[in-house]
Amino acid sequence: MNAHLLSVDTLSRDYVERLFDVAHRMEPIAQRRAITRVLEGAVLGNLFFEASTRTRMSFHAAFSRLGGSVCDTTGFTFSSMAKGESLYDTSRVISGYVDAIVMRHPDAGSVTEFAAATHVPVINGGDGPGEHPSQALLDLYTIRKEFERLGKAFAGAHLLLTGDLRYGRTVHSLIKLLSLYEPLRLTLVSPPGLEMPAELIDHAENAGHRVAQRDSLNADYGDVDVVYATRIQKERFTQEMEEGFSLSQDFSVDRAFLDRHCSPHTVVMHPLPRDSRPGANDLNVDLNGDPRLAIFRQTDNGIPVRMAIFATLMGVDHLFERDLRRVGWQPPHQVGVDDALPTP
Amino acid sequence: MNAHLLSVDTLSRDYVERLFDVAHRMEPIAQRRAITRVLEGAVLGNLFFEASTRTRMSFHAAFSRLGGSVCDTTGFTFSSMAKGESLYDTSRVISGYVDAIVMRHPDAGSVTEFAAATHVPVINGGDGPGEHPSQALLDLYTIRKEFERLGKAFAGAHLLLTGDLRYGRTVHSLIKLLSLYEPLRLTLVSPPGLEMPAELIDHAENAGHRVAQRDSLNADYGDVDVVYATRIQKERFTQEMEEGFSLSQDFSVDRAFLDRHCSPHTVVMHPLPRDSRPGANDLNVDLNGDPRLAIFRQTDNGIPVRMAIFATLMGVDHLFERDLRRVGWQPPHQVGVDDALPTP
Amino acid sequence: MNAHLLSVDTLSRDYVERLFDVAHRMEPIAQRRAITRVLEGAVLGNLFFEASTRTRMSFHAAFSRLGGSVCDTTGFTFSSMAKGESLYDTSRVISGYVDAIVMRHPDAGSVTEFAAATHVPVINGGDGPGEHPSQALLDLYTIRKEFERLGKAFAGAHLLLTGDLRYGRTVHSLIKLLSLYEPLRLTLVSPPGLEMPAELIDHAENAGHRVAQRDSLNADYGDVDVVYATRIQKERFTQEMEEGFSLSQDFSVDRAFLDRHCSPHTVVMHPLPRDSRPGANDLNVDLNGDPRLAIFRQTDNGIPVRMAIFATLMGVDHLFERDLRRVGWQPPHQVGVDDALPTP
Repeated sequence: MNAHLLSVDTLSRDYVERLFDVAHRMEPIAQRRAITRVLEGAVLGNLFFEASTRTRMSFHAAFSRLGGSVCDTTGFTFSSMAKGESLYDTSRVISGYVDAIVMRHPDAGSVTEFAAATHVPVINGGDGPGEHPSQALLDLYTIRKEFERLGKAFAGAHLLLTGDLRYGRTVHSLIKLLSLYEPLRLTLVSPPGLEMPAELIDHAENAGHRVAQRDSLNADYGDVDVVYATRIQKERFTQEMEEGFSLSQDFSVDRAFLDRHCSPHTVVMHPLPRDSRPGANDLNVDLNGDPRLAIFRQTDNGIPVRMAIFATLMGVDHLFERDLRRVGWQPPHQVGVDDALPTP
Repeated sequence: MNAHLLSVDTLSRDYVERLFDVAHRMEPIAQRRAITRVLEGAVLGNLFFEASTRTRMSFHAAFSRLGGSVCDTTGFTFSSMAKGESLYDTSRVISGYVDAIVMRHPDAGSVTEFAAATHVPVINGGDGPGEHPSQALLDLYTIRKEFERLGKAFAGAHLLLTGDLRYGRTVHSLIKLLSLYEPLRLTLVSPPGLEMPAELIDHAENAGHRVAQRDSLNADYGDVDVVYATRIQKERFTQEMEEGFSLSQDFSVDRAFLDRHCSPHTVVMHPLPRDSRPGANDLNVDLNGDPRLAIFRQTDNGIPVRMAIFATLMGVDHLFERDLRRVGWQPPHQVGVDDALPTP
Repeated sequence: MNAHLLSVDTLSRDYVERLFDVAHRMEPIAQRRAITRVLEGAVLGNLFFEASTRTRMSFHAAFSRLGGSVCDTTGFTFSSMAKGESLYDTSRVISGYVDAIVMRHPDAGSVTEFAAATHVPVINGGDGPGEHPSQALLDLYTIRKEFERLGKAFAGAHLLLTGDLRYGRTVHSLIKLLSLYEPLRLTLVSPPGLEMPAELIDHAENAGHRVAQRDSLNADYGDVDVVYATRIQKERFTQEMEEGFSLSQDFSVDRAFLDRHCSPHTVVMHPLPRDSRPGANDLNVDLNGDPRLAIFRQTDNGIPVRMAIFATLMGVDHLFERDLRRVGWQPPHQVGVDDALPTP
């Protein structure tokens, strides 16, 4: 029953659906309409050997909302590791202190090596170019939830993924998760040199998806149901690429793009952070306030999804609802100032 | 109902009085005679983009004593901000994770910009040369509480503020808060070049206070009810100032100064930290153990005042007393070893 | 009743025995078979002015498992201290915020100076070359617990301590604690130049122990009941030592060493971290999975021992058992993957 969450590769559709069901039942807590103390007495080791304030806070808050305590570690060097301590020893020692472990580490595979030394549940919070399964899960959860709100069917939907599809860890994991589902239409738009790796395209096509690749956001795509934008980091450009890239259109997803290619029911997503500076090849701030911009609903969804991950790994996914209590304080009616959804 | 605490400028006397009433009712908890869990299930984002261990711990402890969980962030750089993320995005994302935010930041105005993107209550924990409203509130709360203990009237009291009055953020905010109250006598003592800015003196005089400026601690002031000392940082001195300054008396508030100018009922305050090294132009350690030295009662007061701030912003200021429980452990009879008050 | 834990020097055998009794009664909580909230409402200041993730997490988890909240501080510089704040002021200020303090600091004596300014209980979490009493206590607790499991008498036992006995803080504190007990046989094995200081050998002999010193792990020791290995740091070697050292046998405790000198009931300990790199003069990884390897049971014991320290200092050592509740989640059957004990 207790296991780890290290990669999306090993997840079955059934596992994902059951996790989303738990996440859905966590929503009243995530939205501060109820509290639970089901993990009272439990301690989380929230180990961030690579900085990621956003992800660390999201896991911290999710565990806290289940009633547990959190012990954070941040910083690039773990003092003992610098003295030649193995990941095996570190993992086994910390497992004697805590009841669950989230680990982010700059080296691919390190979290899996860490998890091999312990029976305490380990969640991969991102291992360099490797995996970040909770991000992929909250992305897919967001798509499902937005479609449900809009009354749209997921089967046959048209998803456009754009930006740096070669190095972007989140789009790789998302493609893998999407391959568990009904045939979809996937349009992949990236500058030359930053295309999605061929094996992932094969993976999606073998799953039955229809995949098209483009090198400009100005092509004719037909209706787009989801735009998933990612940032293009300048440091990825080689000399050769930069010339070709400067000739093409820019890769900023903005209001003009939505007006041309999208319907009022398109869902615009981004793994964040986005570069809000002028001229960034990223999701444009001119979409702020547009109800199609789902990026903050997407990060909000990180809480119920991560609560569901903890609850499932620690065996309380069928128990927490017996423990719901009312919220003692007065939460704001709405979290953001600019999150209006269209009137149904 | 939910709002932010960003500046003392917008506070009314009525708001301050109500806050102090809540703080007063928090004293049994702050003094470990009772506990409350009224914020159970709530999460604080304690965001310190500038180091301030003392202030961070004070907010952390205050929120914990209300029953909430705290997620700390420390460090000068927020990894996402370095990648071009706007304060708007950072604020909105974190607001989806937590129920209240304390933010300290080196740039004036940054906390207000942060707060503009969220309906989750934001407390300014200090924004560089800007504001630090909770410090000013605990300073005024201390004056009021000490006067009550001593049976002294606040109206007409004589307050002497000394040290670096030009750059000292705490004395600026305190002057503003004092201007909400009955006419007082304010004596401002600073070396030439480090005087209180003229607009703040105008502000105090317009409020009806009698303000005098001096450049030496050896003048004749008559009775002083409160001495509020601040540190003079050497790096503030220009070449010209340093010559003039070396001619004048030093700015150390010590036992000799109190013997000359103060009564047994004078209250000696300081925002801390103080420079305890020999020769520092700061509050002298020869006053340690003197009952007039209120500096540790002042920092202790940070807990009930910050509890009151959280309780007010989160709408539990009328609820927490229903939830009081007895303390399970045995707190020390007295916190410090050297905090004796005179027998009443 | 409330006091500090600063050094093993002041501990009586009676105090240690009573503490171990409390630790024993904490085992069901430490092993996640029960939870307590006896310290609900209490706040720990976990002040690590020197990095030690392992020790910080152990204290954090122990306090959390008693129901308290923890405020961590990490980093080599305390911002206020850098501005000339005294340890006296820092201690007194933080004592107004929290209910117990753990402090680790690079300077010997600093924790004792810190504790002199407060009545809030202070635990020395290691002060440079000075003391680290909770480590010595958990080491002795481990020996007692292992002997009890093995049905062995502690009186007359043969303990072999090896590695850097000159600079190793943990072996110094352990020798002092052992001197409270029945006569033992102590064999001290270290390379020339890294021998146990003479005053500590005197201390042990005056307590009635039989002490022998060796410079090689290949001598004939007879039966060894406990091997306590420590790491030899290359940077400790002088030029002269290094030549002599390279001639002698290496100081790695490995399976071959155990086969030659130990019985199936020998207990192998290490304060950790150990250097797992090939060629390290440290406890060898070829012992992983050997039931005699007690190093992870040893770190696991840090939790009940530190819980007992907190409970004793805060006066809840006779109260926590009234408050035991069942664990809400499903802990793993066994923490590590490789911790098998021999069938009794």
